[in-house]
Amino acid sequence: MGEKVKGFLIIIGGAEDRKGECKILKKFINISGGKDARITVITAAAQDPQQVGAEYIEIFSELGAHDVQALNIESRKEADREEIADRILDSTGIFFTGGDQLRITSLLGGTRVYNALHRAYREGVIVAGTSAGASAMSDTMIIGGSGDQAPKGSTVSMAPGLGLLEEVVVDQHFAQRGRMSRLLLAVAQNPYILGVGIDEDTAILVSPDGKFRVIGSNTVTVVDGSIVDFTNVSELESGEPLAMFNAKIHILSPGFGFDMKNRKPLKGEATGTYIRSGNG
Amino acid sequence: MGEKVKGFLIIIGGAEDRKGECKILKKFINISGGKDARITVITAAAQDPQQVGAEYIEIFSELGAHDVQALNIESRKEADREEIADRILDSTGIFFTGGDQLRITSLLGGTRVYNALHRAYREGVIVAGTSAGASAMSDTMIIGGSGDQAPKGSTVSMAPGLGLLEEVVVDQHFAQRGRMSRLLLAVAQNPYILGVGIDEDTAILVSPDGKFRVIGSNTVTVVDGSIVDFTNVSELESGEPLAMFNAKIHILSPGFGFDMKNRKPLKGEATGTYIRSGNG
Repeated sequence: MGEKVKGFLIIIGGAEDRKGECKILKKFINISGGKDARITVITAAAQDPQQVGAEYIEIFSELGAHDVQALNIESRKEADREEIADRILDSTGIFFTGGDQLRITSLLGGTRVYNALHRAYREGVIVAGTSAGASAMSDTMIIGGSGDQAPKGSTVSMAPGLGLLEEVVVDQHFAQRGRMSRLLLAVAQNPYILGVGIDEDTAILVSPDGKFRVIGSNTVTVVDGSIVDFTNVSELESGEPLAMFNAKIHILSPGFGFDMKNRKPLKGEATGTYIRSGNG
Repeated sequence: MGEKVKGFLIIIGGAEDRKGECKILKKFINISGGKDARITVITAAAQDPQQVGAEYIEIFSELGAHDVQALNIESRKEADREEIADRILDSTGIFFTGGDQLRITSLLGGTRVYNALHRAYREGVIVAGTSAGASAMSDTMIIGGSGDQAPKGSTVSMAPGLGLLEEVVVDQHFAQRGRMSRLLLAVAQNPYILGVGIDEDTAILVSPDGKFRVIGSNTVTVVDGSIVDFTNVSELESGEPLAMFNAKIHILSPGFGFDMKNRKPLKGEATGTYIRSGNG
């Protein structure tokens, strides 16, 4: 974790509730400042940026934010425009929609918008992303690999992500698309990296102290490879099955959390500390 | 593991190769005695027992067994017939087809065939089962629970199995049907039980010493809950998501194995011991 970061992240496993209680999106708006929030929606991942942008503007406005704007950046040239970067710096909350994570990084990587995003996050702005926008958060991101298959050589593909979340690889639509195998492969490739699989309508809220808490309606699966003492991953030809001994796995439901620095699961709402009511 | 058992088990995750190299089925025939094998196929699980029985008779005959017979038991009365039980006792290899695991146990449980099966296994006969026939092997078997969903209260259903494999719960079509969540729920319910998820065209060969080796083309996932130090499984209402801290997970590809008594993954072909060639 970068030591000087002051921002929060909300990393959403896709298909978040947008019609009912909207727990996750409401949390994003609240942390962004509620009615005083200045929200910027980045639709770079989307195939249909206008439509997706309009949809989130409507939702975030309904949730009480008065200043919501969508940046439908469609070229690297646009991503280098100073007034667009300025909007990022002027935001109190930034939201990445779903779509294709490679569109996010290939459009924004190294541009003024990219630098503004990192600066805003360091200085305390909350950055959220759903689905592709979730995958893009980490240093290295998963960009492909079918669900519902055995973990085999060449069945996960990865690329450099936005790098807001370090030493972690995120996967989304996790249980719903049977993605355990590709997360295990990613962790086997470098057991130093923490694997975080986020279910649909579920998110992690990452604090500057390197802890996260789960919000939403399903679970988050954490795969910790730090005690892995054997894997054949480096020898696998394409299609050959993986072996990996002694990975640790934690299943976290809403309210539970994880300390990424110390690699410890956390109970309760208060990320590790308990306030007990009553006598004794 | 029963201490006096002399038999082997081959527990197959379904969809085993029946047309190409037939690695798994060939192993079953070889251990059963090759051309001298007396194979009994039990089709109790199947919707279409005649057809499934005929299919396996053809395959096992092609693989070299001269005496292959299918028992299409369709009632508990039949399962109590002495001449059918005698055929079981006279077999050198017994094979359970796929279908519905509850049909196996509800038809056979407590009958003469059931007792003969246990006696034959104890005395050294190999018992194999694929798909539903694999699930039925354990003390407690998984009988339902959709794949590709988060682990939640009431999303796995279980029933008493044939009890040939103790202290283990088996799941099949594992990666292919996204069944991690239901195996995790089963393990959370009783972390003493080892969870073994077997992929399609993949099997474990269980020896009387309580070790198994993986054969076939995909992987076996072992979930060991013995160091789990927290779970909310006992408090879950239907549909509420699971939390479980510190499960261990091993991914085993063909050639690798597992020591179920000591809960240790095993490298190499020789279940734990290495014979090194060359100097030194």
